[in-house]
Amino acid sequence: MTDHISKQYDQDLETIRSRMMQMGGLVESQARAAIDGYMTGDIARIDAVIANDKRANELEIAIDNDLGQIIVRRQPAASDLRLILAVSKTVTDLERVGDEAAKIARMAREIHGSRVVSGIPLTAVGHVSEIAIGMLRRSLDAFARLDAAAAARVCAEDVAIDSEFRSIIRQLITFMMEDPRTISTSLNIVWVAKAFERIGDHSKNIAEHVIYIVKGRDVRHIPLAELEREALG
Amino acid sequence: MTDHISKQYDQDLETIRSRMMQMGGLVESQARAAIDGYMTGDIARIDAVIANDKRANELEIAIDNDLGQIIVRRQPAASDLRLILAVSKTVTDLERVGDEAAKIARMAREIHGSRVVSGIPLTAVGHVSEIAIGMLRRSLDAFARLDAAAAARVCAEDVAIDSEFRSIIRQLITFMMEDPRTISTSLNIVWVAKAFERIGDHSKNIAEHVIYIVKGRDVRHIPLAELEREALG
Repeated sequence: MTDHISKQYDQDLETIRSRMMQMGGLVESQARAAIDGYMTGDIARIDAVIANDKRANELEIAIDNDLGQIIVRRQPAASDLRLILAVSKTVTDLERVGDEAAKIARMAREIHGSRVVSGIPLTAVGHVSEIAIGMLRRSLDAFARLDAAAAARVCAEDVAIDSEFRSIIRQLITFMMEDPRTISTSLNIVWVAKAFERIGDHSKNIAEHVIYIVKGRDVRHIPLAELEREALG
Repeated sequence: MTDHISKQYDQDLETIRSRMMQMGGLVESQARAAIDGYMTGDIARIDAVIANDKRANELEIAIDNDLGQIIVRRQPAASDLRLILAVSKTVTDLERVGDEAAKIARMAREIHGSRVVSGIPLTAVGHVSEIAIGMLRRSLDAFARLDAAAAARVCAEDVAIDSEFRSIIRQLITFMMEDPRTISTSLNIVWVAKAFERIGDHSKNIAEHVIYIVKGRDVRHIPLAELEREALG
C-alpha cells in the first residue's frame, strides 16, 4: 500500500490514516466516559463528554477536507483510492459514534437529575455497552492493521448486540409494568441501550470498510457467511 | 458545472446524479408506504416495504462503485469533486432512510399483530411523519436544482421535528402510565417516531451536502444562523 515513487504521497496517506485513528481513539474514550458517567452519576465526567463532542465534529470536517485535497493532488487509483473512500465513510461513522456518546451523556444527566433513581435498573445496559465498545475497539484495531479476518469477526458480533438489546427492552418493559412511575426514567435507559446498539452498528460498518480496502469487495448488505468467505478468501 | 471538453464526462456525472435521484425517489416512496401501512394495518403494503429495502441497498453499492470509477477515469477537481463527494455521502444517508422505512414497516407488523391495538394512539406519529417525509422531499428537490437557499430551509426544519418528537414521547408516557398493559405496543410507536426523527436528520444531512456543493463550504456542525448566511451569501 505504501510503494509510491513520491515519499510525500505516502506521508499524506499516513497522516490521514493516523488522524482517522486519532478520531477513533477520541470517540472510543467518549463512549467509555459516557457509560462511566451514566453508571456513577459523576456529573463532571458527563458534562465533559457533552463538551468534547465538538472535537470529533472538527476532526470529521478536517479529515474530509484533507481527503478532497489528496484526491485532487494525487489522483489516487486502486488500493489508495479504496483507502481514501473507506476513510471518508469511516469518518462519518466515527462522528455518529461521538453523537451517540453525547446522547448517552445527556440521558445520564436526565436520569441522575430525576427523582426516581433508586431501584432503577441502570446496570441493565452494562453488557450491551461492553459489547459495543469492544466492537468499536476491535474495528479500529482491524483498520490499523488492515486485518480483514479481524474485521469479519467484528461483523459477526452484531448478532450478539441485537439479541442483548432485545433482552434489555423486555427487562425494562417488565420493570415499567410493575411500577409505572418509573416509565419516564426507564425510557431514558431505553435510549442509552439504543445508543450502544447504534455504536455496534457503526463499528460493523467500519469493519466492512476494512474488508473493502483489503479485499476490494464491497461487503455491505451481504449475508454474514458470504462476508466471512470474502474476508478470509 | 457541466462545462467540460468531454461530453462523456458530463454524461457520466449526469448518470450518477440521476441514479442518486432515483434512489432518493425510491426511499421516499418506501417511507410513504411504511407510514401508510402503519396507519392502515395493510399487511401486503407493509411486507412490500420490507421486501423492497434491498433495492435501496443495491443502488447504494452500484452508485458508490460508479463514483470510484469516475474518480479514477476523470480525476475530478473543484466543483465536480465536491459533487462526487457529496453524492457519496448522500447515498449513505439515503440508504439509512431506507433502513428506517423498513424498521417502521417491521414495527407496523408487530403493532397490528398484537392484541392491544384498539385505543392505542397510532396517529400520534402522523405529524412527525409528515414533517420528516416533507424534509426528505425538499432536500432531494434542493439537490436536483442545486438550490442552497432551499437546502438551508430544510436545515431550519430540524428544530420542528425535534420538538414534535419530544411531544410524542410525553404523550406516550402519559398513555403508558394510564394503562401499563399498553407499554409494549406504545414502545413500538416510540420506535416509529424515532425512525421519522432520524429520517429528518438524514434529510438535514443531505441539505448540508447541497450547500457544500453550491457554496464550497462544509456547513456541518455550525449554528443554523451561520449556515443560513453561508447558503444565502
